[in-house]
Amino acid sequence: MANESSAAYRRSPCPVACALDILGDKWTLLVVRDLMLGRSRFKEFMDSLEGIPTNILTDRLVRLERHGAVEKRPVPSGVRRHTYHLTEKGEALRSVIRSLVDWGLDYEEGTEAGLEPSV
Amino acid sequence: MANESSAAYRRSPCPVACALDILGDKWTLLVVRDLMLGRSRFKEFMDSLEGIPTNILTDRLVRLERHGAVEKRPVPSGVRRHTYHLTEKGEALRSVIRSLVDWGLDYEEGTEAGLEPSV
Repeated sequence: MANESSAAYRRSPCPVACALDILGDKWTLLVVRDLMLGRSRFKEFMDSLEGIPTNILTDRLVRLERHGAVEKRPVPSGVRRHTYHLTEKGEALRSVIRSLVDWGLDYEEGTEAGLEPSV
Repeated sequence: MANESSAAYRRSPCPVACALDILGDKWTLLVVRDLMLGRSRFKEFMDSLEGIPTNILTDRLVRLERHGAVEKRPVPSGVRRHTYHLTEKGEALRSVIRSLVDWGLDYEEGTEAGLEPSV
């Protein structure tokens, strides 16, 4: 795990491959989407339509934080509660999300843009 | 498998989720990248730096073809040989690939743009 964020972990120096080493699965970019929609609490991510399993959500938030795309902030009134927020590196994924939104809307029948008003 | 390309398979009507149902793994978009770089033969994909396993490459090409992003063309002189090409739907992934290239170059140290001159 210690090497996962280092060059030693990488499959190649290709920026697409390096991006997919972090983002390449069915769930990570959905968490990023939720963060872009203003969701910040663990339960809010759980409540998304896709029904992300708890253990996968925990893993993806840890991974995004370890790679500097998400930061965790304590909730002042909460005991051991946190909210999650995109860093500049995470915000920079907006064009990736937008491209996926456009592609889905253009080519996958039955997709609905209305669900993602602010991405 | 028969339902995989239908709405019944989908986790939600969100275009990002629908796109990731097809593209969300560590390998599929690398095959798309290779196709955008002009590679078209099975062996050319195998020879990419990341070393995609044969069974995964076969699976991803079949999936991309089933979802209408790739088309297979017979090689006139070859017995049971084919080349693979992006359809319009596959070509439309160029902005996704470009966004991932930009993000990787901007935020992942040690990535090299020179490997992907024409994407």
